[in-house]
Amino acid sequence: MKEQKLTTENYKGTRDFYPEDMRLRNYLFSVMKDVVRSYGYEEYDGPMVESLDLYRAKTGEEIVGKQIYNFIDKGDREVAIRPEMTPTVARMVAKKLRELPRPIRWFSIPNLWRYEQPGHGRLREHWQLNVDMFGVTSSRAELEILSLACDILFAFGAPKNSFKVTISHRSLLDEFLLDGLKVSPNQAHEVSKILDKKNKITQDEYVALVTKTIPNDSSAVSKIDLFLNATVNSLNQIPGIKEETLAAIKGLFEDIKTIGLSDIIHFDPSVVRGFDYYTGFIFEIFDTSPQNKRSLYGGGRYDNLIGLFSNEELTGIGFGLGDVTLQNFLTAHNLLPNFASDTTVFIPLLDDSSFAENHNFAKELRKEKISAEVSLVSQKMGKQLSYAEKKGYRWILLRGEDEIKTNTVTLKDMASRNQFTFSFSEALQKIKEELSK
Amino acid sequence: MKEQKLTTENYKGTRDFYPEDMRLRNYLFSVMKDVVRSYGYEEYDGPMVESLDLYRAKTGEEIVGKQIYNFIDKGDREVAIRPEMTPTVARMVAKKLRELPRPIRWFSIPNLWRYEQPGHGRLREHWQLNVDMFGVTSSRAELEILSLACDILFAFGAPKNSFKVTISHRSLLDEFLLDGLKVSPNQAHEVSKILDKKNKITQDEYVALVTKTIPNDSSAVSKIDLFLNATVNSLNQIPGIKEETLAAIKGLFEDIKTIGLSDIIHFDPSVVRGFDYYTGFIFEIFDTSPQNKRSLYGGGRYDNLIGLFSNEELTGIGFGLGDVTLQNFLTAHNLLPNFASDTTVFIPLLDDSSFAENHNFAKELRKEKISAEVSLVSQKMGKQLSYAEKKGYRWILLRGEDEIKTNTVTLKDMASRNQFTFSFSEALQKIKEELSK
Repeated sequence: MKEQKLTTENYKGTRDFYPEDMRLRNYLFSVMKDVVRSYGYEEYDGPMVESLDLYRAKTGEEIVGKQIYNFIDKGDREVAIRPEMTPTVARMVAKKLRELPRPIRWFSIPNLWRYEQPGHGRLREHWQLNVDMFGVTSSRAELEILSLACDILFAFGAPKNSFKVTISHRSLLDEFLLDGLKVSPNQAHEVSKILDKKNKITQDEYVALVTKTIPNDSSAVSKIDLFLNATVNSLNQIPGIKEETLAAIKGLFEDIKTIGLSDIIHFDPSVVRGFDYYTGFIFEIFDTSPQNKRSLYGGGRYDNLIGLFSNEELTGIGFGLGDVTLQNFLTAHNLLPNFASDTTVFIPLLDDSSFAENHNFAKELRKEKISAEVSLVSQKMGKQLSYAEKKGYRWILLRGEDEIKTNTVTLKDMASRNQFTFSFSEALQKIKEELSK
Repeated sequence: MKEQKLTTENYKGTRDFYPEDMRLRNYLFSVMKDVVRSYGYEEYDGPMVESLDLYRAKTGEEIVGKQIYNFIDKGDREVAIRPEMTPTVARMVAKKLRELPRPIRWFSIPNLWRYEQPGHGRLREHWQLNVDMFGVTSSRAELEILSLACDILFAFGAPKNSFKVTISHRSLLDEFLLDGLKVSPNQAHEVSKILDKKNKITQDEYVALVTKTIPNDSSAVSKIDLFLNATVNSLNQIPGIKEETLAAIKGLFEDIKTIGLSDIIHFDPSVVRGFDYYTGFIFEIFDTSPQNKRSLYGGGRYDNLIGLFSNEELTGIGFGLGDVTLQNFLTAHNLLPNFASDTTVFIPLLDDSSFAENHNFAKELRKEKISAEVSLVSQKMGKQLSYAEKKGYRWILLRGEDEIKTNTVTLKDMASRNQFTFSFSEALQKIKEELSK
């Protein structure tokens, strides 16, 4: 009878991270972490599973019910695997609101789950850098967050013209639609949804949707066009925009000039972020390469994030950057380095009696923070060399018959093929010198 | 009308990791990773959610149905949040069996989920270091894994007498029970389950359970006692033990002596690991402190792990070390260090006009890999000092009225309270010097 075997395929929309994939992931994470830490942000994390209630409100209708991994636990609680980190961070901040010194600068790289059709840049499980600042109303917070968001891409070696940041203010669109175009709140909501997907539909489809939503104003499309093309300086000619909104935008762009980011950060009234909880500035970072022209990441300000948990108000600003999106960007711009093996020295076993000695060599290397793999079973030299080659080790430390007689070791550099025979302590010295170069 | 607020409590049996908790977690993970990497192990990861089939077989009955987080996804697939990593690693290895150079040395620190009553050292979400080696039949693999398992605790500063390793061989108990004591396979299974929980029940309960399981042999308890107290040298007097099992145990203990771990690693036939998939050596690492006397972690050899996926056989050996258990051990032995803030320099804002200059200082510091937080809103000095104090910054870099006039900065060391006024480049130099000490 033949036993039925299980498939080795991973669950749809997820990834297996083999060591070479993991080296890439670790590289992405460590560069991101270094940048956000350099700005004084502290890492946090929350549980993978939260109460479903956390996602019911505020997240945008689409998620609950359709895209979320929710289920009933064995204690009859409605729970969900986190689809995003913002509700968790809001809960955690609300819980310790009195104790946490402000401003709160936090980051995390959680894995998030969404039930959706996997596609380019869209997976069911992905990781997302979340960076947030709480407790600063000044648009200097926007400035810092934008500067940090750009520095992440620079840290990966992205050239200045490879991406651009577009920024708008949430109130702008509402003020224009409600007070300028004078449509109803329902119509305004519809139009903002249309604008959010404008880049994904044709111009004809766009015009048809707008006309259907605002049937009684035949010049709606052209008025909206005028709004979408407004600059910081021409914004005062758009009907409906409040003085304070104008002042906020002008102030931010003066600051942007001061810190030298005018080339990268641009005002663009067409930016509409999908989530409903944004209340102030919203921004998106775009890949400028023609073949990958898409939003890399975005974020914005939300003034009432902890409102679900508390009657107090706390303003926040933040963004999220997904690992798949980032990796696609770096690949498209040829910015991913080659990853060498994690291990430095391989110690083959040529004669079984050398095992204890080899084990001691490895121990000495490890004491000096040099990683070393020892062969456990004696094999022919050729086989062990080819293994070391495949694994990409930098050196081989060898103790054959001759070396045993003279109490020496042979150190072979796998790249240059140079080799030296000397005492173990000399070999250790040599490795340390080369590594510190 | 008063709005109903959501609770800020996290889901039962999970933890919120605030920055201070996260620093501890990062410390635990980085020490573990450094040790396993120094042995040439490579990091991997798999998805958080797998097909439920993966856990149905081989995992021990208790998990499926009772302790597992399983549910039906929106595409009608039976899935589960991983309760352990072994099925995932087996699946991944089976998938690339032809390509992976052997031996395969892998590690991961996944978060795992089990539905159980939270208690001391038992949580619903925990992290577990998993270390595995595949493809080496020699007990040198056991030797390396045991040496590595000990080195992890040594790397945290554990003294030699703070823990001990006990090791047995899976066949030993089976051979003794089936061929020595001549009980049925069902009885043998029952007895091994009783022995697994022997430390958690009273001696009377233990005797009663054994007598109930083997009613027709009145000396069963004393015969089992003799077995449980056997040493490597007296093992040949126990009935039923096969020659090859004896030889394997003797061989391993000779190797253990050679590499100098005899003080720590002891033979103990009473070791029984709960999971059914172990087939060879099994081991446990115990905390020896009287107040925390419990198994810290354990592992063993499994010869047919990929059998679920493939007709080929691949031998493996590995162990898992949970973060909660590790943290309890380190706390009990007073081995946890104090964690300073991640950030090095705080730059207060005393006058709004200094913002751009402060921002540039921070930029220069960050270029040198020195983390710096800039204040975004000007405030009184006292308030900013007390914030810096709370956050635990090492230095404050100050540019007040006097410093602006003389184009200098004041660098204040928060620990010693020493301060110097000099140019920014001198301050940068000073910080770099101090940090390299």
